Amino acid sequence: MNNNYIQPDSWSIIEEGFDAKHVKSTESLMSLGNGAMGQRANFEEHYSGETFQGSYVAGVYYPDKTRVGWWKNGYPEYFAKVLNAPNWIGINVTINGEALDLAKCIKVENFRRELNMKEGWLSRSFMATLHNFIEVKVETKRFLSLDIDEVGAIVYHVTPLNNDAQIDFSPYLDNGITNEDSNWDDKFWDVLSVNHEDEQAFIVSKTMKTHFYVCTSMQTQVSLNGTILKQDKIVNDAIDKIAFTYQNQVSKGDTITLTKFGGYTSDRNHDKNALVSEAKKTLNQVSELGFDTLLEKQRQAWAKIWDMADITIEGDVAAQQGIRFNIFHLNQTYLGKDARLNIGPKGFTGEKYGGSTYWDTEAYCIPFYMATKDQNVAKSLLEYRYHHLEKAIENAEKLGFTNGAALFPMVTMNGEECHNEWEITFEEIHRNGAIAFAIFNYHRFTGDYSYIPQKGLEVLIGIARFWQQRANFSEAKQQYVILGVTGPNEYENNVNNNWYTNYIAKWCIDYALETIERVEREYSSDFTRIMHKAKLSKSELSEWKAVADNMYFPFDEERNVYLQQDGFLDKELITVSDLPKRERPINQKWSWDRILRSPYIKQADILQGFYFFEDHFSTEELERHFNFYEPFTVHESSLSPCVHSIQAAKLNRMDQAYAFYLRTSRLDLDDYNHEVEEGLHITSMAGTWMSIVEGFGGMRIVNDTLSFEPKIPEQWEGFSFKINFRNQIIKVKAHKGQTHFELEGNQDLEILVHGNKVMISPNNLVTV
Amino acid sequence: MNNNYIQPDSWSIIEEGFDAKHVKSTESLMSLGNGAMGQRANFEEHYSGETFQGSYVAGVYYPDKTRVGWWKNGYPEYFAKVLNAPNWIGINVTINGEALDLAKCIKVENFRRELNMKEGWLSRSFMATLHNFIEVKVETKRFLSLDIDEVGAIVYHVTPLNNDAQIDFSPYLDNGITNEDSNWDDKFWDVLSVNHEDEQAFIVSKTMKTHFYVCTSMQTQVSLNGTILKQDKIVNDAIDKIAFTYQNQVSKGDTITLTKFGGYTSDRNHDKNALVSEAKKTLNQVSELGFDTLLEKQRQAWAKIWDMADITIEGDVAAQQGIRFNIFHLNQTYLGKDARLNIGPKGFTGEKYGGSTYWDTEAYCIPFYMATKDQNVAKSLLEYRYHHLEKAIENAEKLGFTNGAALFPMVTMNGEECHNEWEITFEEIHRNGAIAFAIFNYHRFTGDYSYIPQKGLEVLIGIARFWQQRANFSEAKQQYVILGVTGPNEYENNVNNNWYTNYIAKWCIDYALETIERVEREYSSDFTRIMHKAKLSKSELSEWKAVADNMYFPFDEERNVYLQQDGFLDKELITVSDLPKRERPINQKWSWDRILRSPYIKQADILQGFYFFEDHFSTEELERHFNFYEPFTVHESSLSPCVHSIQAAKLNRMDQAYAFYLRTSRLDLDDYNHEVEEGLHITSMAGTWMSIVEGFGGMRIVNDTLSFEPKIPEQWEGFSFKINFRNQIIKVKAHKGQTHFELEGNQDLEILVHGNKVMISPNNLVTV
Repeated sequence: MNNNYIQPDSWSIIEEGFDAKHVKSTESLMSLGNGAMGQRANFEEHYSGETFQGSYVAGVYYPDKTRVGWWKNGYPEYFAKVLNAPNWIGINVTINGEALDLAKCIKVENFRRELNMKEGWLSRSFMATLHNFIEVKVETKRFLSLDIDEVGAIVYHVTPLNNDAQIDFSPYLDNGITNEDSNWDDKFWDVLSVNHEDEQAFIVSKTMKTHFYVCTSMQTQVSLNGTILKQDKIVNDAIDKIAFTYQNQVSKGDTITLTKFGGYTSDRNHDKNALVSEAKKTLNQVSELGFDTLLEKQRQAWAKIWDMADITIEGDVAAQQGIRFNIFHLNQTYLGKDARLNIGPKGFTGEKYGGSTYWDTEAYCIPFYMATKDQNVAKSLLEYRYHHLEKAIENAEKLGFTNGAALFPMVTMNGEECHNEWEITFEEIHRNGAIAFAIFNYHRFTGDYSYIPQKGLEVLIGIARFWQQRANFSEAKQQYVILGVTGPNEYENNVNNNWYTNYIAKWCIDYALETIERVEREYSSDFTRIMHKAKLSKSELSEWKAVADNMYFPFDEERNVYLQQDGFLDKELITVSDLPKRERPINQKWSWDRILRSPYIKQADILQGFYFFEDHFSTEELERHFNFYEPFTVHESSLSPCVHSIQAAKLNRMDQAYAFYLRTSRLDLDDYNHEVEEGLHITSMAGTWMSIVEGFGGMRIVNDTLSFEPKIPEQWEGFSFKINFRNQIIKVKAHKGQTHFELEGNQDLEILVHGNKVMISPNNLVTV
Repeated sequence: MNNNYIQPDSWSIIEEGFDAKHVKSTESLMSLGNGAMGQRANFEEHYSGETFQGSYVAGVYYPDKTRVGWWKNGYPEYFAKVLNAPNWIGINVTINGEALDLAKCIKVENFRRELNMKEGWLSRSFMATLHNFIEVKVETKRFLSLDIDEVGAIVYHVTPLNNDAQIDFSPYLDNGITNEDSNWDDKFWDVLSVNHEDEQAFIVSKTMKTHFYVCTSMQTQVSLNGTILKQDKIVNDAIDKIAFTYQNQVSKGDTITLTKFGGYTSDRNHDKNALVSEAKKTLNQVSELGFDTLLEKQRQAWAKIWDMADITIEGDVAAQQGIRFNIFHLNQTYLGKDARLNIGPKGFTGEKYGGSTYWDTEAYCIPFYMATKDQNVAKSLLEYRYHHLEKAIENAEKLGFTNGAALFPMVTMNGEECHNEWEITFEEIHRNGAIAFAIFNYHRFTGDYSYIPQKGLEVLIGIARFWQQRANFSEAKQQYVILGVTGPNEYENNVNNNWYTNYIAKWCIDYALETIERVEREYSSDFTRIMHKAKLSKSELSEWKAVADNMYFPFDEERNVYLQQDGFLDKELITVSDLPKRERPINQKWSWDRILRSPYIKQADILQGFYFFEDHFSTEELERHFNFYEPFTVHESSLSPCVHSIQAAKLNRMDQAYAFYLRTSRLDLDDYNHEVEEGLHITSMAGTWMSIVEGFGGMRIVNDTLSFEPKIPEQWEGFSFKINFRNQIIKVKAHKGQTHFELEGNQDLEILVHGNKVMISPNNLVTV
C-alpha cells in the first residue's frame, strides 16, 4: 500500500514530479466526471508509456457474451460492460516536427498535476526538453461542465523557452477504441459518420447490440498570447477518426494555446437523428461563453455542492484530504438528475465490475445522498429498483421461483442480471434485503411515507415472496433454514444459514407484513390496487409469517455469539494477526479453496447486520460480536473498513475507529489494495462519509428524532458536517469537549445529543 | 430417452432407414477406434445436413486458454482439449456432375448401417435417387486396423441402377478442421506441407502450442467390378487440403469402387522428420496386403479380444447387445499398448470433457482391464499416475500444500490440471482417494505386490500427506474435519465433511501407514530409498495417524445412517418420485442453486464408499443406506447406475438390479441422457461390465480367494463371462439353478461359490 506520492493538501490532489510508474494510478485518482460523462486523467497529447485510456458516457453499456467454464442453467446470456467511449480529449502536439511525448523527452521538469476538488478542474504543467533540444513549457487545464453536462473544456498552452519553434496542434476525435477488459480486443462501436464544419467535428457511432447512438464532438480554437488566431487547418479524417491540424510559428517566450470543447450527445437524451445538431448547439453555446466563463460557472456549481456536502477535519490534513476526495468523487459520479442512472462501483474511473448497480447503492450510498442532497435524489435511487421490479420477477422465475417472487440482480445496467458466477449470481441473494432496507431507511430518515404506498410496497411484496419461497423447513431443526447462499463475506460460498442472510430475510418479511397493515389502514385505495395487482391473499401472508416467526439463526452458546453460518466453528480459528504479512492480501496470495476453508472474512457480515439493525442488539452484544469477528476480518473489500469504523467509534475504541477511517478514506489515495490503476472505489466512498457522520458524529434517527453522539479521535482538533434532515439543514461542528449545532431552516427542531434532548432554532448557534 | 431406432441384435448395432435426426447419434454410436486413433461414423461423402465431424489421434491434445468469469488464484492457465484431427476418410462422389449428398437426394431407400462388433467394422448401404434421376446403389465398409494401428481402410462401391453414368470419386485429406467445442472457431493446427506421390497424399501439420507433429495420409485405388483401373487423376491441392479426382464412365449395373487407406503417423511415435516416410511405409504395407486381407486380420484380432472379454446373456437380446456394445467400445478406446495414454470419458467418440483422464479410470475402468487383459495393462494405468506424481506435488503446492503432498488433477492430459471450475478443480479432491484405492485393488486382485515398493508407495505417501494437511482439527467437534469439498455427487459443492471424502481420506492414510510398515519389513532397500527420497520421518507418520484415528464422520442417530455431508438433513427431503417428469433431468431443467439446495444426488456418493469398502460394512448397513439414499438419486451421471446395480443385486433386489443394468448398459444406445450426439460414455461402460461380473456374478476377492455369488435376473436364462485371475482364465457360465466353472490354466484353483469352497482344475468343467 501507500504510493505516498500524493501531496497532502486539504482541497487538492497534487502530484509533483513525473514518474511513469504513477501515470495509471494518477489517471484514476484525478478522473473527472459530471454525472453524465467521465474521463480518466489521460494526457491530451500522445503518450507512448503505459496508460489506461478511459472515457465514459453514463448509461451507455454493452452486453458482452457471458463466458464461463461450464455453463449452468440460469446464467444470464449477457454480461453488461461499462464501455470505453470515443476519445474527445486528444490533442497531439509536435514541436519542430517532433511529437511531444512525455515518455520520450530528454528531460521533464517541474511536472505538476492538480485535481482541484473545490472548483472541479484538473491542471497539469511541466517543462520538457525534446530530442531536438527545444525546451517548452506546457500548461493545461480541463474540466467537465456540471452546468452543461454534455461538454468538457480544455486549454492547452505551449511556450517555447529556448528557441523559436513550429508548434502544431492536432486536436482529434477517435472512435477506434476498445475496452481494456475485453479479452479479445473486440470492438463495441460501429461508426456511422465522420463530419466537420468550420472548427467543429463530429463522429456519430452506435454501440453494437445495445444500439446506443452517440455523437462525439469537438470545437477548437488557437490563440497566441491570448489573441485568437484565424488560420487555415489541415483536416485528416479516417473511418473512425478525425483530426484538425493547426500549424504555428511561435517565437521564443510566446504562448500558443489550443482551446478545445468536446463531449457527447446521445440518444438517451435526444432524437437519434438530431445528435449532430444538438452537439453543434452545445458547442456553439459553450464557445460563446468561452473557457473562462464556463470555468467560473464550474466554480459556482461546485461551491454549491460543497456548501452542503463538505466535511471539515481540523488538525489532520491527510484525513481532511481523504474525506473531500471521497465526497468529490461521489458527486462526480452521481448527482441524481437522471433516474435511469445509478452509482457504479468504479463510477467513471475505470471499467472493472462491468455492470453499474450493486447492492452497494442501497447499503452504502443512499445515506450519503439522502443527507447531502434533496430527498428526491434518494427517492430516485429507490425508484430505480421499482422500475426494475418486473425484471426482478422474471429473474426469479428463471431460477424456479413463482408467484411474483422477485430477485433483484447482483449487478445490472438495465434491471437484467449481468453477473455470471453461480456462487454470486444465484447465491448472493442477501442483496434483496438491502433493497428492502433502503426503503425502510428512506422513510426513517426523510419521514416521507408516501413512496411506500405509491411504489415501495410492491417491491417489498416481491422480496418477501422470494424469501418465503427461498427458505425451507428443516425437519431436523424444526425451523426454517436458508441453504446454499453467499453472504456479504464473499470469502465463503454456498454456505447454509448465513446469519446475515437469515436475519435480513426474516426482517424483510416482518417489514413487508407491517407495511401491508399500515397501508391497509392508512392508504386504502393504494392497498386495494396493490393487493389486486399482486394477487396477494391473507393465507399467503400467514405462510410468510410462519417463515419469519420460526427462522433459524446459528448460535454458539459457549461464546454467546451468533455464527456467521453453520459450521463456522469447525474452521481452524486462526486470526489475521497469525497471518504472515507476505501472505496478504489473501485474495492475491492464496488459492480460492484455501480462502474458503479459512475463517478469514472479506468484509463485515454479521457486523453488517449489526450495523443495519443496530437497535435490535445491545452494545454488549455488539462488543462481543465485534471482538469475535473483527480479528478474522482481512477487510479486502473496500466496503469493510467503514462499517468497522462506525462500530469501533460506538464502542469508544477511537484508535481503531481512526485507523479504519483512514483506511476507508484513503483507500485509493494510498492504494491499500494495489489496484487503484484500475479505477477508484466509488461506492465505498459513501461508507467513508458514514464513518464520519454516523461513526464520529454518532448520527442516528431515534424515533423520528435526529440524534448525535460526537466523539473525536485524538489526532483531530474537531470536525464538521451538514445534514439535510427533512428539508432543514443542520450544521454540526464537533470540537473536543463541545459541539456546535446550527440550523438553516424555518422551524425549531428537537434533537438528541448524547441522549439528551436539545432544541435548536433557525440561525441560532447551540453549543452542547 | 430411448431413440429406439437401433435394431436388437446380439453382435451388431444396426440402423435401418435414413433419418436425418439420427445422423449425429449414430455417428457417436458407430464410432470406430483402435486405441491409437478414432473416427466418428461420419459419412465419407459430403453431407450437408447436421453432422458432427470427428477424427482423433490418441494423445494429441491442445491447451486452450482457460476462460472463466472471474479469475481465481490457483486456476490452471490452460485447459487441455481433445483435438479434432485432420479428416482422412473423406471421399466426395459426383454422379453426372451432381454431388451425392444424402441430405439432398430425391429418395434414399434401403438405408442400412451396421457396426459389426464381432469383427470390428462399419458398413453402410443404400439406394439413392439424385435430382438428375440417376439411381445408384452405394455400399461402403470401413475399419481402423487393430494390427497396424496407424491406418484405417475404406471400400466405397457405387453401382448405377437405371442408367449409365459418369461417377467421379474425389478422395481427400482435409486439415481445415476446428473443434465443435471451440467457442471461437479457433484453429488448432498449423499446416506445414501438402504433398502427393503416385496415388498417395500427405499433409504434415502441427498442433499450435503443444507442437505435436502429425502426418495425415491416404492411398487410393479405383476398380471396376473388382478389376483395378489404371487411370489418370486430377490433383487439387490447397493450403490445408488435397484431393484426387478419378473420373469414371460406368455402365448401368456395373460397380465402381474406391478403396482408400489412410490415417496418421505422429511424432509421439516417430521422428518428426520421418512422418511422411513412415506414412508411406505403412500405406505401402497395407495396400500390398489389400483391403480383404487386412479385414481378415481385423476379424482375427477382434476374435482374440472377444475370446477373453466377451460376456454372453441368454434370453435377452437387448441386454446382450448392451454389454457387447460396452465391451467393444472399451476395447476400441484403450488396449494398454501405450503407457502414456489413458481412458477418456468419451474415448474417440466426441470432444466433450476436454482432458483425457478422470478418476473414472481408477474407480471404474481398472477392474475391467485387470480381469480381461494381461495384468500389465492395469499396471500401466497405475504407472500413468506414478509418472505424474511430481506434477501432482506441484499442483498441490500451487494450492498452498507443502512437504510433498500430492493432489492429482481432476482432469489431465499430461499430469497437469486442466479443469477450471473452482468447485471441481480445487474441491473435488476425493479423486486422490480413488488413485490410492486402485493401487490397493490391483494388489488385491492380481496378488502382485511388487508394484508397491517399486512405485506405488511413493504415490501413497504423497496422497497421505495431502489428506493430513487438508484436514483440520475442529475444536468444536474435537475431531478432524475436512471442509470445503465437492464429493462424487457433484450436485453438492463446497460442503463440509462429505462422508465419502472423509472416509477415503482416513482409509488412504491407514493404507499408506500399513504399506510403509510392510515395505519396511519386506523390502528394506526399497524402504530406505523411498524414505530418503520422500524425507519421511516417524514423527510425521504419527501426525498422519492422529488425523486418521480421529476423523469425524457425519451420522444421524435417529435414522442410523451416515450423512452425505454436514447439514444434509436440513434439506427438504423430497424424493425423486416426488419430482414431476417434466422437471427431469434436473441438470437441464433446474437452475444450479436449486439443484444444490435440493437433496437430489447425481451419482453414488456414500454408496460409492460402500462399494469400495464393502467389507467394512454389514449387509444390513448397506441396505439401510441404500434405502435412504437411492430414493434421492437422479442418476444423472453415467457412473451412477452401475454401482447401484451391483448393490441391488447384493441385496437380492433383482428387478432393481436389472433396471439399473439396462440403464448402464444401454445408456448410449437408448440415449437416456439426451446427449449421445456428443459422444459415448466410455468410462461408465466399464461400470456396466462390473454390474454383470460383480453384480450378477457376485465376483469378489475374499482373502486372496476368488469368490462368486451368481444371481440371475428373471428376464435372463443365463450369462457367462471370463476372468483372468492371476494368469489363469476362469470361465463362469451361470444358469438358473447352477453355475459352471471352467479353468484355462495350469494349476488347480480353490474358489468360493456362495461362500463354499470349490476346487476347479484345468480343463475340467465344474458345476455348482
